[in-house]
Amino acid sequence: MVKDRFHDIVRTALEKEGWQITADPYEININDVEFEVDLAAEQLLAATRENQKIAVEIKSFISPSKVSDFHTALGQFLNYRDALEIVDPDRQLYLAVRDPIYESFFKRRFIVDAIQRYQLRLVIYNVQQGVIVQWL
Amino acid sequence: MVKDRFHDIVRTALEKEGWQITADPYEININDVEFEVDLAAEQLLAATRENQKIAVEIKSFISPSKVSDFHTALGQFLNYRDALEIVDPDRQLYLAVRDPIYESFFKRRFIVDAIQRYQLRLVIYNVQQGVIVQWL
Repeated sequence: MVKDRFHDIVRTALEKEGWQITADPYEININDVEFEVDLAAEQLLAATRENQKIAVEIKSFISPSKVSDFHTALGQFLNYRDALEIVDPDRQLYLAVRDPIYESFFKRRFIVDAIQRYQLRLVIYNVQQGVIVQWL
Repeated sequence: MVKDRFHDIVRTALEKEGWQITADPYEININDVEFEVDLAAEQLLAATRENQKIAVEIKSFISPSKVSDFHTALGQFLNYRDALEIVDPDRQLYLAVRDPIYESFFKRRFIVDAIQRYQLRLVIYNVQQGVIVQWL
């Protein structure tokens, strides 16, 4: 599947930058909400580099509506970040977005404002070169 | 479709309580994000009663993962509320949830905390009786 391809590209791109993948999928367990059921859909990975710990939510943005994809990405990001605060508070959550999606959609004013308002962290990657382009 | 059935039930239940439906679907237009594309999926309705104005996001929660449905519901709610602040700031946004979903899922601690943190307004409805049960 396409989304698995993007997942693998991000994983490899992180390794190229010296990150060690410590869990793939990375499962967050909260006692009263079954995140793992959901994680089957679009899975997180966890990585470390020196004393940094991150979790990465990889969104493919392949549905016909980028706005719908953004709703889901935003809600998932906030829920995962809130869950991480409980179970793994030192781990920073990032949303991984392909560079054409970032350029065409994430630079629109409404989306820029949402990213600012909800303090989303982004990692932009390039599919052809298989590299991380930018951390935001 | 099931989701359209829930939509119609909420619409009728609101009318029973004296609300006048002023737009169905209610389309939010922001200059640089095409919400209307997305609204084809799960549509808002707008209603008024005396000097109150509301928009209602009706979520069916029929996918196998309630957590996934909640991600989307949360992200959509926040994006729509932020959009309303720009185009129709006097209109209050509500998320309509069936009472069994409210009882079985929305009372879990993690979800209760999310509702509190993101200040979601809920309207709980009963499908069999076709009525609004609770405004939260």
